[in-house]
Amino acid sequence: MMRIAFSARIPSTALQATRNLLVVGGILLLAGCANISSVRGTADLATVVARATGEVAILDTSTRQFIGIVEGLGDLSHASIVYSRDGRFAFVFGRDGGLTKVDILRHEVVVRTLQAGNSIGGAVSQDGRLVAVANYEPGGVRVFDSETLELLADIPATIDGSSDRSKVIGLVDAPGNRFVFSLWDSGEIWIADFSTGNEPKISRYKDIGTQPYDALITSDGRYYIAGLFGEDGMALLDLWHPENGVRRILDHYGMGEERLPVYKMPHLEGWAIAGKRAFVPAIGRHEVLVIDTENWQQIGRIPVHGQPVFVMAHPDNRHVWVNFSVPDYDTVQIIDTENLAIVGELKPGTGVLHMEFSPRGDQIWLSVRDDNKVVGYNPYTLQPIAELPLPSPSGIFMSDRAGRIGL
Amino acid sequence: MMRIAFSARIPSTALQATRNLLVVGGILLLAGCANISSVRGTADLATVVARATGEVAILDTSTRQFIGIVEGLGDLSHASIVYSRDGRFAFVFGRDGGLTKVDILRHEVVVRTLQAGNSIGGAVSQDGRLVAVANYEPGGVRVFDSETLELLADIPATIDGSSDRSKVIGLVDAPGNRFVFSLWDSGEIWIADFSTGNEPKISRYKDIGTQPYDALITSDGRYYIAGLFGEDGMALLDLWHPENGVRRILDHYGMGEERLPVYKMPHLEGWAIAGKRAFVPAIGRHEVLVIDTENWQQIGRIPVHGQPVFVMAHPDNRHVWVNFSVPDYDTVQIIDTENLAIVGELKPGTGVLHMEFSPRGDQIWLSVRDDNKVVGYNPYTLQPIAELPLPSPSGIFMSDRAGRIGL
Repeated sequence: MMRIAFSARIPSTALQATRNLLVVGGILLLAGCANISSVRGTADLATVVARATGEVAILDTSTRQFIGIVEGLGDLSHASIVYSRDGRFAFVFGRDGGLTKVDILRHEVVVRTLQAGNSIGGAVSQDGRLVAVANYEPGGVRVFDSETLELLADIPATIDGSSDRSKVIGLVDAPGNRFVFSLWDSGEIWIADFSTGNEPKISRYKDIGTQPYDALITSDGRYYIAGLFGEDGMALLDLWHPENGVRRILDHYGMGEERLPVYKMPHLEGWAIAGKRAFVPAIGRHEVLVIDTENWQQIGRIPVHGQPVFVMAHPDNRHVWVNFSVPDYDTVQIIDTENLAIVGELKPGTGVLHMEFSPRGDQIWLSVRDDNKVVGYNPYTLQPIAELPLPSPSGIFMSDRAGRIGL
Repeated sequence: MMRIAFSARIPSTALQATRNLLVVGGILLLAGCANISSVRGTADLATVVARATGEVAILDTSTRQFIGIVEGLGDLSHASIVYSRDGRFAFVFGRDGGLTKVDILRHEVVVRTLQAGNSIGGAVSQDGRLVAVANYEPGGVRVFDSETLELLADIPATIDGSSDRSKVIGLVDAPGNRFVFSLWDSGEIWIADFSTGNEPKISRYKDIGTQPYDALITSDGRYYIAGLFGEDGMALLDLWHPENGVRRILDHYGMGEERLPVYKMPHLEGWAIAGKRAFVPAIGRHEVLVIDTENWQQIGRIPVHGQPVFVMAHPDNRHVWVNFSVPDYDTVQIIDTENLAIVGELKPGTGVLHMEFSPRGDQIWLSVRDDNKVVGYNPYTLQPIAELPLPSPSGIFMSDRAGRIGL
């Protein structure tokens, strides 16, 4: 078990040294023709966003080390990443509207475009041909060729009876080369169907509720669920039966209760679905909600340490891991999906922003922003397996997302 | 859409030419230092067994072409393949006891060992460190270092009160660095736990039923299910609660019915679990059984075209695809998992031995042995997307199995 001794706060010079080392490593990989170290599989690689420095670090989960850093990706606050069909290229969606295609084998930027003023994530189509980006400004979705990032389709999020556009959130890929997304300002869910080419067929579902703030799609791509910030409840669309329209679930789940001030919007990408149960972060409450995915009724509430942000299921479905918003973001709790008890707790450091399991669940990796480190654990023994310096790390994205619907 | 015009039976000279071309391609890749073409992601690659010639072809599902062939793998009848943690190396289990580690980027054999006289498949541990092989002769499981194929552990399948050993079948990996397998001759299920190192802790479950012939584990690694050839019914072990022992399910599902002669043993690796329903090939009957995975009770039977061999779920869970044993092995049927109706049928050629979906389900690939071809389809439109010559193709294995529990 490799472990790097590492003090909580590293001086920025050390950070700089570490970064330079990694960058030099990256550049060396590009020099000369005997580029052996970039001939390797991609299934055990991940990317980690370093938000403060506009960089992405490339993590080798087998050696448990960073093997490269790619710079110059712009404003990466709230950045997210999806992968090309072959797992080699990471599409990085920056808050500044930047869309960057990064080669995680060569550790270099392939192509970068400032495609909007403010964006909030994206998705790759089922066939790998298209990359779609959800934009706040201008509100809408832009769709690019995943090879060249050439703009192929522009879908403005128009609002009936208004010249304004809506912010778009919760963009995911769905089977049949569809993209599904939600409109924050007008309370709609749209489906853009690219199954017949680059001219999408758009379906609009209105009056789904107030202020959808994020969404997820189940791992089989059947159910698209948008969380509502403006009211209790969530909006569910069955993509096997879009003709049935959008259905409200968890209606008034917090009715009559005082909501705490929301320090950080929970993420629904992090929804955990373990077996027939879904585990959902409650907004503004110190609770994780448990939902029966057969009928989408709430069947339980689990009191937790703080306001949950991400609720992530271990690939073996036996546990879900939860992190929290400030001031409780030094803690991670582990819930048993069978008896709903909290069976473990970790304090990896200050500012735990994100968690990601390795594809088969032998590892979990956490970003600890304020301590400028990424830590890996054995999720069964809770023993640390690695502690790696990185400035202000946030999102961690395993490359096996290339083969997963909705990720 | 690439399509290769190709007549059903190609002359062996043409085959030879094709193979040579591919092999030369493979060799060229190794020559010189500018080995660009092997710098690539692995997420869109698959391997296809060419059983008659002891070869494995490497399929690029993005360009829809074979990009290499690796020869010299011995007797590949009934061969199966699993992948290294990084997706770069395919472990090929041959019927002759050969275990071969193939580099799918360099298109070459890395290391090969004749580890037994007769073997029937294997698995890679959750952490990627171990490769286990199920052997008929000598009956047992051997475990190797996935890096070097050095023998690390030998687990003879001993039979109480006998000096004989049992054939081992249905070997899978399970969470917690465990391997689970079944003993054909003694009707047992064993768990070998490698979570603490290379000295496994063995748990034996006896009297599970007569002649377990194959097994599967659910995608979350919780339920291990062995099919019984010697009697009706199946044996289920809940790996979350091994203390509860093995439970019989589908007891006497064919009671009182005359079983047809079984031309080919159905495969359980091919079990389809779509949502809460499992779809199972019935032995010796023209039926697919439907099981409720909540209580493991049979809830339906679907009459099909012949004796089912593989029943595979599309990654979107909406359909399952079924192929059949001789004489019906020219046909594939598609079942709707919602209304259990047969909604499609294909006749890709004579001798459809195996089917495999691309990870996100935009493609399905089928081996058509007697027509010496591998064909790809768009599973939504049922339009062919590729037809590739290969001598006597059988198993097709996508490299994303590297990140899946039990595959």
